[in-house]
Amino acid sequence: MVGKELVIFKNANIVNVFTKEIIKGHFGVLDEKFLFVEYNQRFSEEVIKNLKVEKVKEIDLKGAYVTPTFIDGHIHIESSHLVPSEFEKFALKTGVGKVVIDPHEIANVFGAEGIKFMLFDAKLLDVYVMIPSCVPASPLETSGAVISAKEIKDLINFHERVLGLAEVMNFPGVINEEPEVLEKIKIAKNAKKLVDGHAPLLRGFELNKYIFHGIMSDHECVEGEEALEKLRLGMWVMVREGTSSKNLYLLENLKRVGDLRRIMLVSDDVSFFDLSEYMLNLLRKAVKYVDVLTAIQMVTINPAMYFNLSTGIKPGEKADFLVFKNLEKFELEEVWIKGKSLSFWEEHFDRKQDNFYQKFTESFNVRKQNLENLLIEGLDKEKVHGRVRVIKPLEGSLITKEVLIPVDDALRLLEKGEINRIYVLERHKGTGKIGKGLIWGVLKEGAIASSYAHDSHNIIAIGKDIEDIVIAINTLIDIKGGFVIVKDKKVVSAVPLEIGGIMTANSSILKDKLTGFYKELKKLTPFKDLLLDMSFFSLSVIPELKITEKGLIKNFQIVPLIES
Amino acid sequence: MVGKELVIFKNANIVNVFTKEIIKGHFGVLDEKFLFVEYNQRFSEEVIKNLKVEKVKEIDLKGAYVTPTFIDGHIHIESSHLVPSEFEKFALKTGVGKVVIDPHEIANVFGAEGIKFMLFDAKLLDVYVMIPSCVPASPLETSGAVISAKEIKDLINFHERVLGLAEVMNFPGVINEEPEVLEKIKIAKNAKKLVDGHAPLLRGFELNKYIFHGIMSDHECVEGEEALEKLRLGMWVMVREGTSSKNLYLLENLKRVGDLRRIMLVSDDVSFFDLSEYMLNLLRKAVKYVDVLTAIQMVTINPAMYFNLSTGIKPGEKADFLVFKNLEKFELEEVWIKGKSLSFWEEHFDRKQDNFYQKFTESFNVRKQNLENLLIEGLDKEKVHGRVRVIKPLEGSLITKEVLIPVDDALRLLEKGEINRIYVLERHKGTGKIGKGLIWGVLKEGAIASSYAHDSHNIIAIGKDIEDIVIAINTLIDIKGGFVIVKDKKVVSAVPLEIGGIMTANSSILKDKLTGFYKELKKLTPFKDLLLDMSFFSLSVIPELKITEKGLIKNFQIVPLIES
Repeated sequence: MVGKELVIFKNANIVNVFTKEIIKGHFGVLDEKFLFVEYNQRFSEEVIKNLKVEKVKEIDLKGAYVTPTFIDGHIHIESSHLVPSEFEKFALKTGVGKVVIDPHEIANVFGAEGIKFMLFDAKLLDVYVMIPSCVPASPLETSGAVISAKEIKDLINFHERVLGLAEVMNFPGVINEEPEVLEKIKIAKNAKKLVDGHAPLLRGFELNKYIFHGIMSDHECVEGEEALEKLRLGMWVMVREGTSSKNLYLLENLKRVGDLRRIMLVSDDVSFFDLSEYMLNLLRKAVKYVDVLTAIQMVTINPAMYFNLSTGIKPGEKADFLVFKNLEKFELEEVWIKGKSLSFWEEHFDRKQDNFYQKFTESFNVRKQNLENLLIEGLDKEKVHGRVRVIKPLEGSLITKEVLIPVDDALRLLEKGEINRIYVLERHKGTGKIGKGLIWGVLKEGAIASSYAHDSHNIIAIGKDIEDIVIAINTLIDIKGGFVIVKDKKVVSAVPLEIGGIMTANSSILKDKLTGFYKELKKLTPFKDLLLDMSFFSLSVIPELKITEKGLIKNFQIVPLIES
Repeated sequence: MVGKELVIFKNANIVNVFTKEIIKGHFGVLDEKFLFVEYNQRFSEEVIKNLKVEKVKEIDLKGAYVTPTFIDGHIHIESSHLVPSEFEKFALKTGVGKVVIDPHEIANVFGAEGIKFMLFDAKLLDVYVMIPSCVPASPLETSGAVISAKEIKDLINFHERVLGLAEVMNFPGVINEEPEVLEKIKIAKNAKKLVDGHAPLLRGFELNKYIFHGIMSDHECVEGEEALEKLRLGMWVMVREGTSSKNLYLLENLKRVGDLRRIMLVSDDVSFFDLSEYMLNLLRKAVKYVDVLTAIQMVTINPAMYFNLSTGIKPGEKADFLVFKNLEKFELEEVWIKGKSLSFWEEHFDRKQDNFYQKFTESFNVRKQNLENLLIEGLDKEKVHGRVRVIKPLEGSLITKEVLIPVDDALRLLEKGEINRIYVLERHKGTGKIGKGLIWGVLKEGAIASSYAHDSHNIIAIGKDIEDIVIAINTLIDIKGGFVIVKDKKVVSAVPLEIGGIMTANSSILKDKLTGFYKELKKLTPFKDLLLDMSFFSLSVIPELKITEKGLIKNFQIVPLIES
């Protein structure tokens, strides 16, 4: 046994996730790994004598609770708008040591290169990747890259931290046995990798078929009985508590079964403002449903078994652990990664050279716009008679409705600001394509532009005034992506997300920028979180009326703006 | 959904190993796989209408209990003296659908070819293989083949049913960090495969070191506290109930922890006469310690998780299941494999062409013997004065003792049959090497020869009369291996084990032959199971005095027969 430093942590209350016990003990860390655990015995004094180490140190934990770091089994890091190396600072502080990500958003921008970026950017956080299964979401939108079955085949064995195929959202495709979808699943299976599911409310025979074709997990349960059915059919059920979806109530039903080993707690999406303590908050809520050891198992040994990762306070394991003053309340005192405290690592974090990020800041391939470009045919020019389709958003929902009104009424309502202009500009391929439409009652004045627009993350812009919209779009192009608000022809707020137009490598300024942005946004719109809602206005696979650079999309079909 | 036949099994009490529940339900089997499970709902009538199947059949299970087939996570099939395709007939009947084997014995005879033979011989039983880590047991014996780190590297990725490195018996080698041993573990780890352990009574820091270096499981626990310690340190603990070792009592301690998911029930070794119902008997005993669902999990989902195998009554899973009239008593009514009952398969079993086995019947490369060859120098010729080493077996134990007596006394005791001659003849390489020695009080008369002698499976022969011994050895060579008894210069019993000299492909005659053999054996020896005991007289790694073709082995060193 040779090493540099042995640290003996004495008098711990060790949370044993293997046996679901809290046991008093001591443990030794040799450099980056646990070397031994002493339960009900001491042998370390004899051991130390025979070890060839340069330094031996003791730390008295005085009865504090020790758990392994947590595993978040399903998260889209992009939702935080931070690159992994910035995201990890928050994750580690909330006890998360391993994440399994679906880098779905960046894959729509940069394809395989984006996925690899996510895989390698973090420094201390162990990032595992599921390969996105649906990029682009549909042929009705132009993404920066396509992840076909062929790309999946290349990527699935690309790295040992690639664990499988990410949430197969196209559950109708599985149920209807579409060859392309089944082919992707088969590729993962042949590589002995996992296949995550995504099938809200799916039950009965269709659910059985979905599982029959190889889907192994689901994180989209809405109803308790649905979650129970999935669990009993052998699925691994991920219960979410993130910014977008809060499903912990499912535990009320799930906890009734005799074995909870196939239940995991995950976040899915965490917005920047919710990042701090997100996993601790999740656990604090979970213990309202299950005991504290069960909750901890749901973020350690359970996901570890599903994803075939390692965990636990045991010899040979990477010494990643958490020290809690109080376990029931999840009062986290200290985080240890690779045998060093987080404060040590914070001092030794070297910021990556900016040129590492350089190539990922070049995601815009789109011309600057002018007023002429954004005129809408049939309304602004060559006015026609007929009825125009207007997108009617339902606040807080992904779903939108279609409203048909006469062209003249639309023009009058546009003038009054009761209807706004909405544009989606293709920004990846330089095609110059612009989808143009109308949307109901979003902004009273000004304009907003964003490059975080599901799933292809083209430019989406909404506004009352066409000149404001032009300025918002052109500013967005200048800052290489992010969010922009323009009022009275002046940029009043701009949040740069320079990495692929969806994330930033500079978390220190994001908080102020984003706070300022929301303050300005509040003045312009009655929507609680317009930024979030509008990010789904372009998602072509959601009913009823959406807009992409290809035009208006009504239930999976392109339709003209003006009904003929 | 296309298939030939859909069979709907109605009114089952389904043992759900995922949730640890018994739930009333129906399930559909499409050809070889489960298609659906109906818990608390019916959808099958609608489903049937839309399925493109040639035939639909219903079977009413009338409330019978249904479980997945069982997994025996650690077994040496060779101990049954049956090839896998014969062994499986017994295994399937006792509910075992998957076995994880360590083909350690055949590997000592045929090396990689023997391992592949074991992997491919069975027809319905799913045979998974761990690659033997210690072949030969030591350099003090000559085996038919050597499995070096290089062979392990080739074999470990040879087939998807190769799951890892078999029991690392050389635990001192791990603890002392011998490069060759660590190299083998590293090969398995690099291939993302498992590493089974074997470390009776190992505890404290040495156990921690053993785990530190990558050993993941143990099946050799002797004491309850030892098993608990291993479990808490993150090992998977296999509790045995086989012919040689019966450790179910360990459950008394183990069951006290809060989570039993890392405990498996295995057999290790099952002799031919114990084969029938072996797994059912194991479970019947296990439910004295744990509830019936926990016991079933220990032979289904628990080993499935450790070995990364699939199990359960779930869509897409191979339709291997068991129907029980009574679950508590494990009254097994019917076994279904790949959606067909065992009785169907029995009719459709086609016996393998004998030429498949042909090359494995040629394991003997040794000359016939004569009286002159077997004379012992210093005793029978060129008699010397001094003290001779006599092996003293302890019945029922692997361990033997050394007794030293004057040469003249030895000759007198030989004559009286109180001491016997013992020989080990190298039979793989044609080296002609013969180890010669004396053994205390085994046979009153006659001679016995066997080619099932750990670990190298050379010829071991014991007898009072040298002429009887010659006949026994030569008969053994004639029948290409097995067991032979000779009395008054006549062969009174011969059991052919023609596959590698350790197994037979002909189980139908084995029962009678073996019964007859034991009947004869009983007349000659006071030992309860001399065949078993003598199979360890040549195991060079066990104290105190053993014999191989290289001579007498005393605590890992060759020693002369007559003390000088």
